[in-house]
Amino acid sequence: MQIAGVNYRSIWLNDDGWSVDVIDQTRLPHEFAIRNLRTLDDACEAIRSMVVRGAPLIGATAAYGYCLALREDASGRALQRAHQRLLETRPTAVNLRWALERVHARIIDLEEADRFAAAMREAREIADLDVETNRQIGVHGLSLIRDIAARRPAGEAVNILTHCNAGWLATVDWGTATAPIYLAHDAGIDLHIWVDETRPRNQGGLTAWELGHHGVPHTYIADNAGGHLMQRGLVDLCLVGSDRTTRRGDVCNKIGTYLKALAARHNQIPFYACLPGSTIDWRSRDGIAEIPIEMRDADELSRVQGRLVNGEIGSVEITPGGTAAANYAFDVTPANLVTGLITERGIVDAAESPLQELFGDVASR
Amino acid sequence: MQIAGVNYRSIWLNDDGWSVDVIDQTRLPHEFAIRNLRTLDDACEAIRSMVVRGAPLIGATAAYGYCLALREDASGRALQRAHQRLLETRPTAVNLRWALERVHARIIDLEEADRFAAAMREAREIADLDVETNRQIGVHGLSLIRDIAARRPAGEAVNILTHCNAGWLATVDWGTATAPIYLAHDAGIDLHIWVDETRPRNQGGLTAWELGHHGVPHTYIADNAGGHLMQRGLVDLCLVGSDRTTRRGDVCNKIGTYLKALAARHNQIPFYACLPGSTIDWRSRDGIAEIPIEMRDADELSRVQGRLVNGEIGSVEITPGGTAAANYAFDVTPANLVTGLITERGIVDAAESPLQELFGDVASR
Repeated sequence: MQIAGVNYRSIWLNDDGWSVDVIDQTRLPHEFAIRNLRTLDDACEAIRSMVVRGAPLIGATAAYGYCLALREDASGRALQRAHQRLLETRPTAVNLRWALERVHARIIDLEEADRFAAAMREAREIADLDVETNRQIGVHGLSLIRDIAARRPAGEAVNILTHCNAGWLATVDWGTATAPIYLAHDAGIDLHIWVDETRPRNQGGLTAWELGHHGVPHTYIADNAGGHLMQRGLVDLCLVGSDRTTRRGDVCNKIGTYLKALAARHNQIPFYACLPGSTIDWRSRDGIAEIPIEMRDADELSRVQGRLVNGEIGSVEITPGGTAAANYAFDVTPANLVTGLITERGIVDAAESPLQELFGDVASR
Repeated sequence: MQIAGVNYRSIWLNDDGWSVDVIDQTRLPHEFAIRNLRTLDDACEAIRSMVVRGAPLIGATAAYGYCLALREDASGRALQRAHQRLLETRPTAVNLRWALERVHARIIDLEEADRFAAAMREAREIADLDVETNRQIGVHGLSLIRDIAARRPAGEAVNILTHCNAGWLATVDWGTATAPIYLAHDAGIDLHIWVDETRPRNQGGLTAWELGHHGVPHTYIADNAGGHLMQRGLVDLCLVGSDRTTRRGDVCNKIGTYLKALAARHNQIPFYACLPGSTIDWRSRDGIAEIPIEMRDADELSRVQGRLVNGEIGSVEITPGGTAAANYAFDVTPANLVTGLITERGIVDAAESPLQELFGDVASR
């Protein structure tokens, strides 16, 4: 998408033809900086320190990191070591393993001399596939927004509420929950986005930054405000992402998603999760019973990062010294609160049979 | 309640016998500082800038502010102007109007020379009455907590979730939602409090500070986390305050309260609002249709205050420069989501007839 009028992806090949550039997301939304990755170490560090974040982008970065390792040493032993080191950067990220295995399979039977070029082609394909998947999610979501826009009085924007950053920064391009928004905006539909702050990591700042650069009208709100907005008729549609979706359609997403789904239901507002089929976990059914919820460092809650008065990036501690804090990273929205799932293959009810029907080929794997 | 072992109220008469001291809540929980109010301007500014906050404390401060105005000019015209200026500081707080009308009624038929002393007596009575009212709320809430504790397995704490700071800092003493908590803790009941951060002003920090000084076990959480906690059986009871309660029991309270009430209902968890009868607005019935919601400065959302690395109090800007932000201060929880209202006269269903029965004498005013 666009940054100050220039098209960007979140990861791309440097002009040198082999090293990899990424946007340093630890500096966003306060500062736009590009980080050049030239070695396996660079790639591992970028993933671990969250210079890159979001499952699809982590997968693409790992694939390129594997290429960078190959460039230095294409021996089987070196590859095994690179594979292991990349896996350990974010041990729970499913896309990371998937991407590594994909590149590995592509090059393992080749001569050492041919491996780097083949791996680079594969990494490029992984990135391109993510872009196309998200664009398809956008196409299906666009039809939904178009329908809502058609029912709005002339001159009134469609108000969409989103939580966290399921934006292009979390993917290679387009984003999941933002793809329909970007396509609708580009199609000339009058939109206004309510951007949930998304404590504790304030990913709403990333979403606001993205939307601002693309020119999509938006307003930043506290996570507490969504219920009030829905109650007062100020929200027409909720679009969120999904970190993991069970086979019956329970949606595990950023903490707070469940509260917004409750408010949407209470006020008869459509609530959709946008996700690639690859986030469906066919091995789980009951998300509340089966999905373990990651607890992250309490410091993410008690310390807030931003721009200091002097313009530098810094942080403040907001809780009284010694206060215990619990940082739950995700929650589960039960399928019966989800109006539907917007996938690259179409919009589907959040229920087992329809999901099976749409993704039968992958579900049986 | 206690601060480092010393008993304090949130507002008291200065040793000079006429000016008023308050705890500067804009510095808490990072720094304990006392602010001296000597003029109507001081009082208005203290209320507007949230040096004092919380409906009952705003009421007491407004009463004293009216006295300070009287001290300078006791004419009817000056009083009218003082009344109006104080009313405009916080449009949602119904106590403010109640307190002003009470002082006004007490002095309006007196000679100008006698007005100041009489008003001061009335302001002090309003403050004392608030302390006793909250203690009574605590007594009734204690019985509820005792019942829940009796049903818990031995050795397991009663988990109470609270939103915002309806604590003693928001009142003259005891607090509303915290009064049952302090009394239950003092009675030896094993408690654990989930403290909602309460963006954008992070009043959860005040609640954590209060509870910490009184020795009540507690954990600070993001506003996003409450639904997850309730879904997983980690909350036994929700206790919140109320800035304004309609005659049928709709509860207007800090933004985000409604979302927690929805989660409580969805998970069959008792959800009570703790309030003095004075916050009941007998002139309103439908809170969603009739209560105007205060919009506060967007800067409260985009700028977060806390302790800098060097220990000083400072702030960081968390949104990208130029991001629009909307800061809704309150929301309305419809009566049918409220299990009951804990008042100084007892616990009552959130509905018109029971409220009329309990407060018939004041309701008819």
